[in-house]
Amino acid sequence: MLPFDGERLARLAREQKVDVVLASTRHNVRYLTGGYYLHFFARASRFGGGQYLSFVGMPVARPQSAFYVGRRDEILDEQHYIDAFGPFWIAGRHWVPRGPGMSQDAAVVAARALRAGGHGAATIAIESSFLPADAYDALRRELPEATFVNAAPLLGELRAIKQPYELERLREVHRLTAEVIRRAFQDSTPSDTTRAISAKIQRLVGERGGTFLYSLINVGPGLLRAPSSEPWGRGRPMHLDVGAELDEYVADVARMGSVGAPPPAAAALFDVCVEAQTRARAAVASGVPCGDLWRAGTDAVRRGPGAEYGRFLAHGLGMVSHEPPVVAQDGTRPLEAGMVLSIETEVRHPDIGHIKIEDSVVVTRDGCEGLGDVDREWCTAATA
Amino acid sequence: MLPFDGERLARLAREQKVDVVLASTRHNVRYLTGGYYLHFFARASRFGGGQYLSFVGMPVARPQSAFYVGRRDEILDEQHYIDAFGPFWIAGRHWVPRGPGMSQDAAVVAARALRAGGHGAATIAIESSFLPADAYDALRRELPEATFVNAAPLLGELRAIKQPYELERLREVHRLTAEVIRRAFQDSTPSDTTRAISAKIQRLVGERGGTFLYSLINVGPGLLRAPSSEPWGRGRPMHLDVGAELDEYVADVARMGSVGAPPPAAAALFDVCVEAQTRARAAVASGVPCGDLWRAGTDAVRRGPGAEYGRFLAHGLGMVSHEPPVVAQDGTRPLEAGMVLSIETEVRHPDIGHIKIEDSVVVTRDGCEGLGDVDREWCTAATA
Repeated sequence: MLPFDGERLARLAREQKVDVVLASTRHNVRYLTGGYYLHFFARASRFGGGQYLSFVGMPVARPQSAFYVGRRDEILDEQHYIDAFGPFWIAGRHWVPRGPGMSQDAAVVAARALRAGGHGAATIAIESSFLPADAYDALRRELPEATFVNAAPLLGELRAIKQPYELERLREVHRLTAEVIRRAFQDSTPSDTTRAISAKIQRLVGERGGTFLYSLINVGPGLLRAPSSEPWGRGRPMHLDVGAELDEYVADVARMGSVGAPPPAAAALFDVCVEAQTRARAAVASGVPCGDLWRAGTDAVRRGPGAEYGRFLAHGLGMVSHEPPVVAQDGTRPLEAGMVLSIETEVRHPDIGHIKIEDSVVVTRDGCEGLGDVDREWCTAATA
Repeated sequence: MLPFDGERLARLAREQKVDVVLASTRHNVRYLTGGYYLHFFARASRFGGGQYLSFVGMPVARPQSAFYVGRRDEILDEQHYIDAFGPFWIAGRHWVPRGPGMSQDAAVVAARALRAGGHGAATIAIESSFLPADAYDALRRELPEATFVNAAPLLGELRAIKQPYELERLREVHRLTAEVIRRAFQDSTPSDTTRAISAKIQRLVGERGGTFLYSLINVGPGLLRAPSSEPWGRGRPMHLDVGAELDEYVADVARMGSVGAPPPAAAALFDVCVEAQTRARAAVASGVPCGDLWRAGTDAVRRGPGAEYGRFLAHGLGMVSHEPPVVAQDGTRPLEAGMVLSIETEVRHPDIGHIKIEDSVVVTRDGCEGLGDVDREWCTAATA
């Protein structure tokens, strides 16, 4: 039983003329194995003069004959894997001894497994925006007759339709992130700097067991979206656009808040953003062309005040932000049930600030469902 | 004013016949810039079908003519940098427009800056265990006359002598990690699984503002060092070997604990480990050959019970674990003041468990100083 849609993989590979997928990033290794990654290197791969690298090699015509390349340490760790997730579905497992050239050595083992499987002259999809140069050199040296192409389009499309367990994780990480933002607004004071508030968010994400990724933070007026020494102040619109990760799935959530009532002009722009989100969500359903969603949101922005500073945007989200589907003005590609979209509307008004709201939804047969739809209204923190 | 030792860089580059360093990893970009990394991508670089990549290019003969390659977004973020760290010392700054081929596009910009600086046929040190294949292809295409070598030996040596601000961060992250381990021992019960205890450590590191990297966790007897469904139990030796990161600097700390008194055999092995650490530390001072340290620790292990299962190990530590200096049996290289060593002693006894202690020290003129030397004794948690 494959932990992903094997027929979808086979179809995509035929369309893209790929014989073998050779995945090497943490997220794609986890996706293809059904959750596994050597825990010691899961949060930082650098070690000695190089970095840890593992591979999943998968002939698309026979995914059951996939192989895994890891480090000898993982043989003990495998007990842990099986304990945690059930049997490791990939039967072909190759272990690279500990040594200085970890990434290169793993690539040599992967190349030899490919050659032994009869794929020495295949078209091999590698993660070319991630695969280290030394591993790439080793693959080309060991497989001089192979053709290497970028695996990103194929793996991005494979992941585009989410399975129920993925939706559960996305729901959880979005809820966690929205709750953390609300808590940060409520617990901060006018004298807190955006750097202090950002540090608070990092701690709040961490104490809930998530991994903090970033907080884009703006206090209007002005458009800087980075933590700085600027204090929040009273009656100033603050936007928090926070990324967090839980078990490899990312959330991307933006909210507005102020100490005391927001400036009326900021509140008016926020209403436009909320209206655009509502209209965009109403346009979402399985079968709807992506471009329709883009237009529903964009038209709402264009009708509001500050239209010239406004922008509507939607993008796929899962293990990666801005993964398929691409939502653009001229997009004719139909949405499919199980796709997850991050929907964002913002007005970057130089005299008011960066006003924004962002949430994610999963496409369903008849519409969509918000993932972690909590605390979406403007947060007015106490002035005390 | 360079934020690193420019003369050391020049000397290392001469020895290794390197003309230009082209750094691209987060840790080396931060090291060379004096702390900067675009915050949005600092904790996860993947985005769309690719990943964020920035570069610091540095002609070693004239480090003042270094250049930085980043993303157009960073122009706004630069305000943040300057606010936080003072003026960005690298005057040559190149911005890559937002686009799908982020890593490749950044490499093209870096290559053209190198060519414009007269380095088109230079020996360029790249981070070949990290640089993405597509960026590597772009560099070779744009600079067909250049020679590319691995920058890891040069950058590892450059970082080997720590500056005072680096020691302060290492002290802080080691103290944080040791305190978290102690707290996890004290707050856990016999029925808690090693997975639950590991998750607790992750939360405790996060709520103190650190980044959790890993927890190698063992309950003896048995040698598995991964979180699992095994409960701690009473009177069983548990070892926690935890990695954490704070502001790019890593800690690597191991401690022992049990609920109630430890088994006498485990306590005896722990005494051996502590004794080996003490003897190893006593051997450390500027000018001492690395091999002397190795022998002081190893001899102490060999004299104790369980000697056949014991191991003494020391390695450099800073932004990377197992960075220079290498400490081996035959190491004649002298220790230098400002080097940081992680010193570890373990006994992997199949009938007792994995008994271990690990701490870091900074080498001084006359000896060494522990970094975050807290809670080093065996932790006996309450049996209630």
